[in-house]
Parts: sequence; C-alpha cells; structure tokens
Amino acid sequence: MNAESLHKLFQQVRKRSISPDEAVDRLRHMPFEDLGFAKVDHHRPLRVGMPEVIFGEGKTPAQVAQIFARLAKHGGNVLATRSSEAQYKQVKKKVRKAAYRPLARAIVLQSDLKVYGKGTIAVVSAGTSDIPVAEEAVVTAELMGNEVQHLYDVGVAGIHRLLANRASLTRARVVIVCAGMEGALPSVVGGLVGVPVIAVPTSVGYGSAFKGLAALLGMMNSCASNVSVVNIDNGFGAGYVASLINRL
Amino acid sequence: MNAESLHKLFQQVRKRSISPDEAVDRLRHMPFEDLGFAKVDHHRPLRVGMPEVIFGEGKTPAQVAQIFARLAKHGGNVLATRSSEAQYKQVKKKVRKAAYRPLARAIVLQSDLKVYGKGTIAVVSAGTSDIPVAEEAVVTAELMGNEVQHLYDVGVAGIHRLLANRASLTRARVVIVCAGMEGALPSVVGGLVGVPVIAVPTSVGYGSAFKGLAALLGMMNSCASNVSVVNIDNGFGAGYVASLINRL
Amino acid sequence: MNAESLHKLFQQVRKRSISPDEAVDRLRHMPFEDLGFAKVDHHRPLRVGMPEVIFGEGKTPAQVAQIFARLAKHGGNVLATRSSEAQYKQVKKKVRKAAYRPLARAIVLQSDLKVYGKGTIAVVSAGTSDIPVAEEAVVTAELMGNEVQHLYDVGVAGIHRLLANRASLTRARVVIVCAGMEGALPSVVGGLVGVPVIAVPTSVGYGSAFKGLAALLGMMNSCASNVSVVNIDNGFGAGYVASLINRL
Amino acid sequence: MNAESLHKLFQQVRKRSISPDEAVDRLRHMPFEDLGFAKVDHHRPLRVGMPEVIFGEGKTPAQVAQIFARLAKHGGNVLATRSSEAQYKQVKKKVRKAAYRPLARAIVLQSDLKVYGKGTIAVVSAGTSDIPVAEEAVVTAELMGNEVQHLYDVGVAGIHRLLANRASLTRARVVIVCAGMEGALPSVVGGLVGVPVIAVPTSVGYGSAFKGLAALLGMMNSCASNVSVVNIDNGFGAGYVASLINRL
Amino acid sequence: MNAESLHKLFQQVRKRSISPDEAVDRLRHMPFEDLGFAKVDHHRPLRVGMPEVIFGEGKTPAQVAQIFARLAKHGGNVLATRSSEAQYKQVKKKVRKAAYRPLARAIVLQSDLKVYGKGTIAVVSAGTSDIPVAEEAVVTAELMGNEVQHLYDVGVAGIHRLLANRASLTRARVVIVCAGMEGALPSVVGGLVGVPVIAVPTSVGYGSAFKGLAALLGMMNSCASNVSVVNIDNGFGAGYVASLINRL
Amino acid sequence: MNAESLHKLFQQVRKRSISPDEAVDRLRHMPFEDLGFAKVDHHRPLRVGMPEVIFGEGKTPAQVAQIFARLAKHGGNVLATRSSEAQYKQVKKKVRKAAYRPLARAIVLQSDLKVYGKGTIAVVSAGTSDIPVAEEAVVTAELMGNEVQHLYDVGVAGIHRLLANRASLTRARVVIVCAGMEGALPSVVGGLVGVPVIAVPTSVGYGSAFKGLAALLGMMNSCASNVSVVNIDNGFGAGYVASLINRL
Amino acid sequence: MNAESLHKLFQQVRKRSISPDEAVDRLRHMPFEDLGFAKVDHHRPLRVGMPEVIFGEGKTPAQVAQIFARLAKHGGNVLATRSSEAQYKQVKKKVRKAAYRPLARAIVLQSDLKVYGKGTIAVVSAGTSDIPVAEEAVVTAELMGNEVQHLYDVGVAGIHRLLANRASLTRARVVIVCAGMEGALPSVVGGLVGVPVIAVPTSVGYGSAFKGLAALLGMMNSCASNVSVVNIDNGFGAGYVASLINRL
Amino acid sequence: MNAESLHKLFQQVRKRSISPDEAVDRLRHMPFEDLGFAKVDHHRPLRVGMPEVIFGEGKTPAQVAQIFARLAKHGGNVLATRSSEAQYKQVKKKVRKAAYRPLARAIVLQSDLKVYGKGTIAVVSAGTSDIPVAEEAVVTAELMGNEVQHLYDVGVAGIHRLLANRASLTRARVVIVCAGMEGALPSVVGGLVGVPVIAVPTSVGYGSAFKGLAALLGMMNSCASNVSVVNIDNGFGAGYVASLINRL
Repeated sequence: MNAESLHKLFQQVRKRSISPDEAVDRLRHMPFEDLGFAKVDHHRPLRVGMPEVIFGEGKTPAQVAQIFARLAKHGGNVLATRSSEAQYKQVKKKVRKAAYRPLARAIVLQSDLKVYGKGTIAVVSAGTSDIPVAEEAVVTAELMGNEVQHLYDVGVAGIHRLLANRASLTRARVVIVCAGMEGALPSVVGGLVGVPVIAVPTSVGYGSAFKGLAALLGMMNSCASNVSVVNIDNGFGAGYVASLINRL
Repeated sequence: MNAESLHKLFQQVRKRSISPDEAVDRLRHMPFEDLGFAKVDHHRPLRVGMPEVIFGEGKTPAQVAQIFARLAKHGGNVLATRSSEAQYKQVKKKVRKAAYRPLARAIVLQSDLKVYGKGTIAVVSAGTSDIPVAEEAVVTAELMGNEVQHLYDVGVAGIHRLLANRASLTRARVVIVCAGMEGALPSVVGGLVGVPVIAVPTSVGYGSAFKGLAALLGMMNSCASNVSVVNIDNGFGAGYVASLINRL
Repeated sequence: MNAESLHKLFQQVRKRSISPDEAVDRLRHMPFEDLGFAKVDHHRPLRVGMPEVIFGEGKTPAQVAQIFARLAKHGGNVLATRSSEAQYKQVKKKVRKAAYRPLARAIVLQSDLKVYGKGTIAVVSAGTSDIPVAEEAVVTAELMGNEVQHLYDVGVAGIHRLLANRASLTRARVVIVCAGMEGALPSVVGGLVGVPVIAVPTSVGYGSAFKGLAALLGMMNSCASNVSVVNIDNGFGAGYVASLINRL
Repeated sequence: MNAESLHKLFQQVRKRSISPDEAVDRLRHMPFEDLGFAKVDHHRPLRVGMPEVIFGEGKTPAQVAQIFARLAKHGGNVLATRSSEAQYKQVKKKVRKAAYRPLARAIVLQSDLKVYGKGTIAVVSAGTSDIPVAEEAVVTAELMGNEVQHLYDVGVAGIHRLLANRASLTRARVVIVCAGMEGALPSVVGGLVGVPVIAVPTSVGYGSAFKGLAALLGMMNSCASNVSVVNIDNGFGAGYVASLINRL
Repeated sequence: MNAESLHKLFQQVRKRSISPDEAVDRLRHMPFEDLGFAKVDHHRPLRVGMPEVIFGEGKTPAQVAQIFARLAKHGGNVLATRSSEAQYKQVKKKVRKAAYRPLARAIVLQSDLKVYGKGTIAVVSAGTSDIPVAEEAVVTAELMGNEVQHLYDVGVAGIHRLLANRASLTRARVVIVCAGMEGALPSVVGGLVGVPVIAVPTSVGYGSAFKGLAALLGMMNSCASNVSVVNIDNGFGAGYVASLINRL
Repeated sequence: MNAESLHKLFQQVRKRSISPDEAVDRLRHMPFEDLGFAKVDHHRPLRVGMPEVIFGEGKTPAQVAQIFARLAKHGGNVLATRSSEAQYKQVKKKVRKAAYRPLARAIVLQSDLKVYGKGTIAVVSAGTSDIPVAEEAVVTAELMGNEVQHLYDVGVAGIHRLLANRASLTRARVVIVCAGMEGALPSVVGGLVGVPVIAVPTSVGYGSAFKGLAALLGMMNSCASNVSVVNIDNGFGAGYVASLINRL
Repeated sequence: MNAESLHKLFQQVRKRSISPDEAVDRLRHMPFEDLGFAKVDHHRPLRVGMPEVIFGEGKTPAQVAQIFARLAKHGGNVLATRSSEAQYKQVKKKVRKAAYRPLARAIVLQSDLKVYGKGTIAVVSAGTSDIPVAEEAVVTAELMGNEVQHLYDVGVAGIHRLLANRASLTRARVVIVCAGMEGALPSVVGGLVGVPVIAVPTSVGYGSAFKGLAALLGMMNSCASNVSVVNIDNGFGAGYVASLINRL
Repeated sequence: MNAESLHKLFQQVRKRSISPDEAVDRLRHMPFEDLGFAKVDHHRPLRVGMPEVIFGEGKTPAQVAQIFARLAKHGGNVLATRSSEAQYKQVKKKVRKAAYRPLARAIVLQSDLKVYGKGTIAVVSAGTSDIPVAEEAVVTAELMGNEVQHLYDVGVAGIHRLLANRASLTRARVVIVCAGMEGALPSVVGGLVGVPVIAVPTSVGYGSAFKGLAALLGMMNSCASNVSVVNIDNGFGAGYVASLINRL
C-alpha cells in the first residue's frame, strides 16, 4: 500500500503531470504513516471529542486564563483540572462560556456536546472525601461525550449500601472506583461486575495511609482480575481511560 | 422485572398452584439478583468464555493436576499460570488435551474456541526478559477468545524498532505493554495509539529496579493519559482486563 | 426463623389477607437479614451507645456545625474529632449542649450517659506530646459509656514511673497505649498486664521517626503477644476497639 | 499476702528472733512480688490456660524437641508454631501426646482441655493460601481454651460467599480475619459485625504485595473502626489477643 | 545508705517504738530507692551536671517560659532546644539569666559552671547548613560541663580542609560529626581519629536526600568501625552521649 | 617542580641565607601541593571558568547579597541558584552587573565570557513544568563557557516532537535530559544519540511520583547504556558535569 | 538538504534516468534522517568500537554460547557480563578466541584492538568486595578501546591510601568510582579531581545497606558537583559512559 | 616534635652533613605525620590492642585461612567474624592457636591478653535469637582487652527480669544492647543507667520487622538520650565502639 501510493507519485512525475517541486511538496504533506514512519500529528483522528487539558495546580490565574483562551480557539472542549475559583474568574473574563465545577475543582468549556460513548460510565467513591477525585473523573468523562452515573459514599465497611446499588453498577459499560485509606472498594466492585474497573487511589486518610500509597498498593494487589489502576488522585486519567474504553 | 417475577410467585401462591412451603423453597433457589441483593453466582453470565484459572506457583504437581482436572470438567477453558513442566506432566496424565506453553509458563486447556473479542489485542514487550510476562498475557487473551498480535523486544532505547511497527499497533483495539527496568515503554506506546493501554511492570532488572518497583512507579506516573496499570509481573491480569475491553 | 417469617408472608397471601402487590412491597421493606442476606442497617442493634462521629480535619466550621446538628437529632452521643475551637464555636451556636475538649481537640455531645463498659479502660501515654492522641481515645471511650483512667508521661526511659503505677494498670479490663518515637511502651505495658493492649503509634518525633512509621513498625513487632495496633494518631479507633472489648 | 509476709518479718524482729541486720538481708532476698513491686513471675496468675510457646522456624528438630519436652513438664499446653514434620518427629519421641497440625504447621500438646473462652472466636480467611496463617490462629485459640469456627476462602472479590455466611460471623464474640494481597477483607467483615476484629496481614501475593506490606497498610487504614492489626503472618498473635478478649 | 534506712526501721521495730503494722506501712511509703529496686528518681546521682531539657518546637512562647522557669528553680543548667527568639523573649521575662544562642536555636541557663568532662569534645560539620545542628551539640556539651572545639565547613569534597585541621581532631577525646546530603564525613573523620565518633545525620539536602534518610543510611553503613549514630538533626543527643563518654 | 622549590629552600639554608628556623616556617607556609600531599586550594587550576556558586534557598536576601558581593570580587562568574527576585534586588544593589534569570530562578554575574566548551550542550526537557530545572542547567553551562541549545516540551508520549528535532540532538557533544513523572525521556534520547546523557529527575508530578523518586528510579534503570544520573531537581549538577565533559 | 536530495530523485525520474520502481526502492533505502524521521540503524556510525553485549545472568551456558557466537560474527568485540565459568566453557567451544576474566565475571572477545579513548580512565574502588563491579567497568572500558588504570581498596576510612595515589587520579580523563556501604568515596574523589566522576553504588554491605540503596542515595547526594551516578552494581554502564566521554 | 625533626634536617643541611638533594629525598620519605599532614599509617599508635579483623561471610574457607594466617603474623589478636566451622577448620590447620566461638560465629586468635579497658562492658540482649549478635560484640570486646559481662534474654515484655539484674548493669562503664523486633530494649536500659549505651538492631523477627529496619528505626528514635546506634546485626561495631569508650 505504501509502495503503491509512492509508485503512483513517481509515475505522475514521470508523466510530468506533476513537477518535482510539487512532488516533494506532496511527499511532505502525505500522512507520515504512508511512509511507514512516525507521523507529525498522529493523534488528530483519535482526538475527536477529546478535551484539551490544562493542569491548573501551581499556575497563576493569569496563566490558566491565557492557556485556556488559546485552547478554546481550537473549537473543542477545554478542561482545566485542579483549578481554583480565582483561576476560574480570570478564565471567565476571556472565555464567556467557561463554567466552574467546584466539587471537581475544574473549569470546563463544553463546545462539543456530541455523545461518543456507547454506554454508561459508573463512577463510584468510597467516602465523601474522595468526591473531588471522583468528580474530576465525572467531568472528564462528560467532556469526552459520555453518559456518567455516580454512586458516592459506598465504602466497604458498609457493604449493604454498595449492594443496594448493584443494579446501576451492572448497567455500566465501564466502572471507575475512587477510594483512599485501605483502597478496598475496587476489589469488591470488581467482584460484582463483569466489565473493566479503573481504580483510582486517593490521598484521603492519614498516618500510615501515606498520602495514597496504602490505597495504591491495595489496588495493585486486587484479587479481582478486572481491575487496573491509575495514579493517586488521578481522576482525570481514570475518566480518560474509561472514555476510550466506552468508545470502543 | 424483579418485582414481576416476585409478583408472579405470590400470585401462584394466591391461586394455590403452589404451596407456601414450595414458594419459600423457590424463593430460596431463585437467582439472588431477582431479589435485588447479592447473587450466588453473579459471575455466570459474565463468565462465558472466561477461563478457569489456577495460580501454579507454590503448588505441588499433584495439587495442580487435581485442581486442573476438576475445573476441566466444567467444560470451559482452563489456565494454570506460573506452572512448571513437572506440573504439566501430572496434569497431562489426567487431562489429555491439556497443552504446555513454555514461554508463558502456562498449562492450557482450550475447549471453547469461540472468538469473543471484537478486534485485535496487541501485546508489546520491551526486552527479551519480559517475554514470559508478555506471553502470559498472550495466552490469557487467547483463552478468552481474542485474536492476539505480539511485538517483542521494542524497548525505548531503540525507538526506531517500535516506530517501524506502528502500523500493527494502531490496528489494535487494546494494547498491553510489558516492561521492566525503567518501565518507559507504555508512555511511548500510549502516545502512539488512541486506544486503552494496559501497562504491566515486570520484575526484570537489578539493583534499584527493586524487583519491579521502579517500573511500577514509572507506569503509574505515565504522561500518556490512556495508560492504566496492573501488578508487577501480572501478565494474566493484563490479558484479562484487555479481553474484557475487547468484548465491549 | 427466616423461613418462618417468609412462610407467614406466603400464607397471608394464600389466605388473601394481603395482596401479591402488598406482599412484594412488604418483602422489599423487610429488614434484609430476614432474608438471610445483607441488611439495610445492620449496625442498628450494635450501635446502641456508639457515638455518631465526624472527622473534623479539613472541614470548614460551617460544615462541621451542619453535620453535627443533623447527627445530634438522632438523640445519641456525637463526637467530632480533630476539631478546632473555631469549629466548636459554630457547632455551639446550633447545638447548645455541645462541649469542647481542647486536649483531645474534640467537640462532644453526651446525651446518653449510660455505662456500657463492664470494667475500666486504662489509657497510657509515653510523653506529653502524645496526650492529644491519648485524650482522643479517652473522649471516645467516655462517649461510648466507659469508665476511663489515664496514666500519662510514663515513657520507657523512666520505667520506674510506669512501675509505680502498675496497680492501676492491672485493674483495667483493656489498656490503650499511645506512644511516638520508638513506640516501645506497648511492649512493656503488654508484659505487665494480662489483658488486651491496643497500641496507638503517634506521629510524635522527628527525623527518622518518619511521622509515626518508626513507632508503627515497633508496635507491629511487639514481643508482647497481647498487643494489637491501630493507625498512627488514631486515638479514636483505639477508644472504639477498647470500648467494644469492654462491653463483652 | 504481701503484707502478711512482711508483717511476719517485722514481728520476728520485734520478738528479737532475728536481728535487724538479718531482716534487712532477708528483705533483700525475698521474692519481688512480696514487696508489691516488679514481680519475678508476674504472669503466673494471668497464664492460667495460656500455652507455652516455641517459635520453631530456624531451630533444629533436636532443639525444638528439647525445649518442647522441658515445657511439657510444666503440665500446661505447649505449642510450637512454624514447625516442620521433621521437628515433630523428634518431639514425638520425647513427648508421646504431642500431635502435629500440618495446615497450621504447628506441634501441639493439649493437656489442659478446660474451656476458658466465653463465646466463639471466628477465624476468617480470604484465599486458600492464607489458610496456614488462619490455622495458626485457630490452633492457638483452641489451645487457649476457646471454641473456634473457621470460614475460609471468602475473599472480597466474591462478596456473596462472605454474605452467605454472615450468620455464623455475627454469632462470634471476636473475629480474626487473615488476608494477603490488598488486605481488604477485615474492613468488609468489620462492617458486618459489632465485635472486635483482629486483622492479620499475610505475605500472600507477589510483586507490589511486598511480602505483606500492602495488606498491612490496607488493614492499618481500615475504614471499619472495630479493626486492630497484628504483624504480617502472625496468626499466633491474633489467636492470643482474641483469646484474651474472649475470656473477659 | 539504703541498708542504713532499712536498718533504722527494723531497729525501731525491735525497740517497739513502732509496731510491725506501722513498719509495713512505712516501708510501702518509703522512696523506692531505699529498697534497692526501681527508684523514684534513679537519675539523680547521674544527673549531676546534666541540664534539664525542653524541646521547644511546637510549644508556645508562654509554655516554654513556664516550663523553663519551673526547671530553673532546680538550680542546675536548663536548655531549651529548637527554640525561637519569640520563645526566648518570654523566658527572659521570667528567668533573667537565661541567654539565647541563635545559631543553635537554643535558650540556655548556665548556673553550674563546673567542668565535668576530662578532655575536649570536637564538633565537626560538613557544610554551613549543618551548623544549627552542630551548634545544638556544642551548646549541649557546654552545658554539661565540657570544653568544646568546633570545626565547621570541612566537607569531604574538599578533603584538604579537613586534613589541615587534623591536629585539633586528634586532640579530642570524643568527636561529633554532623553532615547532611551523603553523610560521608563521619567515615573520613572516623578513619583519622582513634576515639569514638558520634555521627549526626542532618536533614540538609534536597531531592533524594529525603530529609536526612540518605545521610542516616550512609552513617549506619560507615566503613569506619568507631562510628555510632543518633537520629537525624539530633544535635542534642550527640552532645549528650559525647558528654557521658567524656566524663568516663 | 615540587622538588625544585624544596631544593631551592634547602640550598638557601645551606648558603645560610636563611636560618633553619625560618626554613621550617617557610615550609609550613608553602602551598600544600608543593609538598606533594593534600593541597590548600587544589581546585585552582581546575576552576578556571568555573562559576562561584551560592545555593539561594533558605537564605535571606541580605545573606545572598553579602555572599554574592564577596564572591564577585574574585573576578570570575558568580551563580546563585534557587534564588528569588527579592534576593536578586538585594544583590543588584551591591553588584551592579548581576542579572536575574527568572525561568532558572538564578542570579548571575558573567564576568568571564570566554568559551571553554568544545561543542554544544543540548538541554532537553519533557514538560513545561520541568523548565525551571532545565534552565538551571542551561544557565550553569552558559556561565561555564558553553554553547547551549535547548529543546523543551518533548515528552515521550508525543515521541514525534522529539524525533522531529533529532538533528539538533545529534549535533550535541553532551546531552542533559530533565524529566519528572515517569522519567522516561533520558532512555529515549539515550537511544537516539551516541554521546553521554546526563539525566536529571525532577520533582514534577503528584501522587506516586513521590517528589521525583519515580523519575529517579526510572533513570537509574535506563535501558540506554549512555545515561548517568544526578539528584532530583539538580539542574546545576547536570550543567556542571556536562560542562566538564564538554571541555575534554 | 532533505528537500534537495528528494528533488534530485524526482528529477531523475522525470528525466527517466531511473524508473519509478527504482525510485521507490531508493527512497526506501535512503538513510531515514534524510527524510527527517527516525532512522533504521541510527547507531551504526556511533557503534564503531562498541562491544556487543550479553547480560549473562539467568541464561543457560548454551544460550550464552549461542548468542555469543552469533554476535562474534559481526567482527567486533563481544562482552558477556555476569557470566560464570560454566557459561564460558560453552562459549569457548564455539568461539576459540573468547577469554574469561574471572574477577569481572566476564567473557570477552577482543577482535578490535584499536584505541578509541584519548586519555586514561581511572577505576577506583573502596573495598575488596567492590572489585567484581570495578573489574566489570575495567573490562568494558578496555573492550571499548581505552587505557584503564585501577586503584583498589582505597576506602574513605583510610583516606591516606587514597591521597597517596592522588597523582595517578589526576592524570585520568574520566574517573569511575565503585563503592558499597555508605558510598562516600565518589565525593572524596570528586573533590580531588577536576574531571567527570561516574559513581557506581555496589550492593556490598549488610543490614541497612539495603543491597546498595544506602550507597546509591549517598552518591545521588554527593557534595562534589562533578559526580553522576549509574545503577547499583552497574560496572558495565559506568565503563560505557566513561568510554563515551573519553572519546570526545 | 614535627618542628624538631624538621629543624634537625635543616641544620644538617646547614652543617653540610647532608646535601640539599639528600634532604629533599629524606623529606619525601619521612613518615607523613612528621609533616603534620596525612600520615602513612596513622592508626598504628591507636591500634595497640585492636584486633585485625576479617569479615568471613562470602569467603571460601581457603581464603579466610590465608588472610587469617597472614594477619596472625603481625603478632596481635585476630578476629574473623561471621565465620563457619568449615572456615575454622582451614584456619586451624595454618594457625594452631586459633579457636572457634560457635555462638558468636567467630574465629579468634588471642595473642595479646593485656587488659586495656578501665571498667566492665555489659552486653545485654532481648531474646535468645539475638545471642549471635550479642556474642559477636562480646568476643570483639574481649579481644580488645575488656572485661565483659553479658545479660541475655531480658526482653522488655518481661521487664522484671531486666530490673532484677539492674545492679550488674549499673556497674558497667559502657552498655551494649542488642534487640530485634521492636528494638525497645535500649530505651529501657538507657533509662536505667547513666553511661553510654550502644544499641545494635538485629534482623531477628519476621513480617514488618523488615530484617531489622523496625528495630533500627526504633533505636534511632529512642527517648533515652544516652543511646547511639550501629548497623543492623553489627555486633562487631558495637564491641569496637564500646572498647574505645572503655579505654578512655
């Protein structure tokens, strides 16, 4: 196939239907993969419906606003995670349609409202302190065009609350589970559903929770085989992976 | 629906077509989910095409053979991971059709040959020492009814080998990446494809590789957003999660 | 018994004293355990005398006050741990009878004054810096209806102070021991008494104390067989476990 | 009693049957407990029904046999933990009534058959690989005069199996929970019962299980307040603590 | 002395000036050391010339001042480590003769000026940032009656500066070495002198210095056999141990 | 040369132009290297073109200014790393020609403009957050007389951006690579070039990045053989080592 | 330039001096970088004088022999690190000229005897136990065409032995320093020389040496600015990096 | 003295009894310390009574025997630590007077029987498993000419056994305390005596003892100020440091 398209190009040159200059130019603008190598923007076709993302933490409101405004011009959705209200106020001045999701600590611009996901993504969290991370996953999945259902405060020490909501869990096509402390919830949820579970350890807890390390190790060693794990507090990553799965 | 089946039961009682005793009995034997609670065998519908699995390490050949034979009677596929040839020999005596996959250190019985996966699962590994883990993922995915394509020895220090095989990567519906040492490969692969990447840290390496910890931490902190991680050397887990995704 | 209550239900249906619709409804509202499964509020009978608990850290005074007031309506004791005076002031406005225990950093409402514990709980601490954790254990045990005796500043480097108080230790039915730094006290106390010892590592210390890790590891490896351990600084947990034991 | 012996001494002095010098001397050589301070064998009254214990690991069969035989002469129960069959054979030659419990890897001599525990101790374990640790707890509790009930292979990924056995759990006066890998089971069990739960992390697992560290951290951070923890693989310690609680 | 007071007691009994009952009672209330066992203040004879010590960190100026004033009444030296100038100002109001040593962050009251040490204690530090810890050792040793000589900024990367000062090192009877980062200095100094070296890891450094852990591990593994180690930043402990040695 | 100067000394003694006493004195004051042993300032010949360096963090503006001014008098380049604008303002008052490099958080005085490096040093960084560390390396290398080329924001998840700049990489004589999170970039760059690569882990990232530990371990285990590593965030060290290499 | 060569190609096609088929073929065989992308074998020009390397550990003698023989056919030097004598015996059968270096545990084939290094590489080690790692560095550097000088058993606790050999150190163009335990030697050596120092932590030591971790952390935090570090026991890596530097 | 010998040299030159050339030569060959700098064998005067030491672990019997025989020729004491009986047998063949101390796993040759220590060194150990480490300390101290008294099996969980032996403890001039598991014993002993305590963590324990790390951290954080610490299982180091102190 590669050979073919190249062959065609050379024959057009031979037939003088295009000049060498034009040929060089075309060669340069052919998608890289046609040449069998790396491509300049390999992500473009994959990026349809993907939000542009800014990590807000450690940036000044002015910096966030400037980047947000630039990305907003691309026409797609924009998401600033770990953002403060102060950052939002600056963004709002430049991008009218930006909105703030305080629970998720996220600034969002949802220009593309198309639904890309084929089913529902369930976002489950263990305790109320895990909600910011869970909400970051929710917002990410929503901006990537998914129907999201959340189920909060269903920690393993009160297993009945989780079981009482099993029905909604089993309807999901992918499940995200956020938990701090011992990080046991993904194992229990993993045992209840037959779909992929994305586990997010949170930094909730104190003492030997070691800022999420206990939860991380717990999740890595889950006895449920359908669990894979993202970084501590990485609600965005979980929402992103779940969205990719839900598009398949 | 739950309500419905319960309603039907009560009406049969009312109509005296069944006695209260029979009704209690039936209620007891109804699948748990009909009652909206935990179910006895909640995995059954999900388990179609899932192999029965034995963790061979630390078991005597006799133990593995006994469990293998028992599970083989269920009629589905059986997989014994981390198994030796000695274990295989014992299994073979009891289960004729069992086969040994030395690279994967796995004993397999593939009774169910149906294809459940909708696309291809690509299994990528960094070095030759990572192959046992990669092969465990391959075997698992194959026994769960997937078409699998593997791409070995494409470590990040020779990025051209990986790029030269990009075409096959981009055809995959899910990608599994196994790497020890610095565990950098999932990030690079993650950047090349637009589908979910399941990263498997391996215990390959020495010194400060700390038996896979360096690779694990690297993968948890991947700058590619489509990466989620399973336990060190957990090729089975990666194959399992990838298979679930590929069925969606 | 389960069978019985179910049987009764079916017979009422048979006798047409209730309709199938009603029966389904009743079945739905029966306590879960009647059906032999998970129960909606399995804690109720156990919770007699247990305080409702709020983890104050990281919550605004307004949030603490709101939750405290809501829980206070249940009629039982309420305990807000890791709470500041600022939080207390807000609580006080809504719940008149709330009191502040500064040493324990706890806001308490003690409506139920009944004694549930059969003996005395002794709370021992190594240094003066461990007192906040010890006092949290004291307050918890008191709110759960126990007689509590405390013994502070009896670190192992001055073993005579501990020995001088052995008599009161040996009178206790359960002993809680709080210690930071090397966390050696539970082992010594464990050797002096014949009852269960709940050890609480504290984050007291600096350098290689690693915020309680040294004490935690020390306690996990206690050469006294009657020692079990809760999380770093978890005075509440120790008080809770000790209270459960003291009720037996 | 202490007072008595002292009183006697003083009266002998008064009666001049002994001189003050002799009295001082005798006082110096009296057993410590007579003086009400540190006592020579302060454990005796507490030790009724406690087994004498040998840690078998790393000892030769001859060493274990020699110590076992010596302790057997005290007349009480003797327990050698982490012992091999080879060690047992040597013990058997010296102590006829000694028995071997292979699952628990324990050599036992049960001379005292009295029941000291007031209720039942439940021993729960997550996977089949956790059984040796669980059985060590069982044997310990039995030798300390308790009725023990075990419930094995009820890991959190198949929560229904645990729930199906809730009844027997709720009958226990103390619960021991052994789990490796993510160590989540104590939290779930803790939420189901209202009694103290002793959690035992096991070294079961691989990779980031880090020989029980993941389970240990998980259990230390349990969201169930009735959980306290003993050392990794310390089935003996759990059985010991549970026995003390069950005697209260 | 002990014998004496006991003797006296017995003679009073003999003389019938007190009854045996009274004698028993008095015996019970005598200071512990009179009986030759655990003593109430067993440190007194050892404490001659030892400062009373306050750990200033985390205490309010008022608290430090109150404790300082109380300890000052004992008549000996008083040392408040890790203290701020604000704390000093409050102390000064209550204890006129108190002085502040800013480099050591210490408040001192030196009432006892006697020299207890038999030789010189050398205090060596690697970098200028280690000086606060080194000075804490200096102040401690001075308050315990030692002649102290300090040698600062002689890190191992400029070994000539250390060697140029070898003479003064070899004159010392004990050497304290403070170093952060790689903590290599004690090994080099240990090789140059034939006396005990007390190594103090400091939290100086960044990144993988891990707040003194790198230095601590380095010093624990010193190839010089005359090195023993105290906690990170524990200048006080080093000064204390060195003073004890210097008194021998 | 050493022999020569010594010889001269002895001959002066022989000629009685100086007395033995004077000779001993002179010998004592001769530069150490003349004697062939440790030398007082052994670095002088090596230090040509090396900047004098101040670590600004934790110093007051006044302290930085004072040290800076003193070092500036030596006539060479001066570099204050990890310095704030406030520190710069104070320096500026004393040293007119000092300049501030905000991206690198560095105050610089470049008096010596000579080029000491034989080729180009390339400084590569993975993400925008790594730039401060990369810029510190750039500034260091520039002050040490090197031509520096930087290549930022070429993380491994977008491998094409790196490859598109391969030409400039392959022109470098030494390459510095700064990366946080998984720290994978040095391996990829290492595979693309045939010269030494100095890897700098940065503390960029969150959760299990553990402040640069994940990146550090990744780089230590690089599968590219031409990579060596400096401390987390140690841009200065990387610039220094690279400069030494570039002078060879 | 790229454009140029492409232009030329197209013009040749236009002029029909070459056929389209030939053109496609040529395009395929043009060096990749001419196209501005990844190149197939970018290492070739860099690899002159680099040995082919096999990591012997964990391979059977047959495997090592087979790989060794295959690589030997390339005509360059071959190095098998971490190899046993048993492995060597098998290699010897297939590759006559292979030799065994027992101290370095290396099998070598030195076909290319050309000197590529411009100066001397000094390899220094702290203790006799570090020699295997040091020798691996020596062998690697020798096979890469360098003059190597080694200096063993010069640990920091006997600094005089190191200083007595300073002359040979200062003659080196690059220095490799291998040390276990506290890993202090690179800092001292770094301070004595003005050239790059490659530090290799070794797993020599016990207890808190933690298999090289203490040495690794020490070296990462070296106060000498000319030190960079490779993995624990990675003598090969150090030899490789040093060789690259020595060629510049 | 230095000055003197130099002066003499110069006067010889002045008197022309030696030529300048000879003088330079002599200066070069004078012992280093005469010049006030690093000395060739700076340890000699310190080494009187110090044993020559071999670390036996990992060496073949032949190697140990060879080194032992060579060191024995120096005429002083020789100590091979961590040595097996097999190693001893080889040593015995070459060095008749060598003896084996099985508890300490040490081969000793005691040629110098002089007493160097001024008082007694007490060696205390917590459990029977700590005895090998304690005995290594005992043997070391004995070979360095000290009177040693040991006190074994006095763990903190049976504090009375320790207290019963307080008298012998308080007679010691230095105390060595060996303990594994929680490592609490040094703190208790430290509180009972007024002399320096050298703490030796041992690798005794399992699970979260982490091969001595728990004990090490416990000892580093001892609340007793007279405790300093050596490496895990480093009985030799403790004996060495204690011996140096006891000579002062």
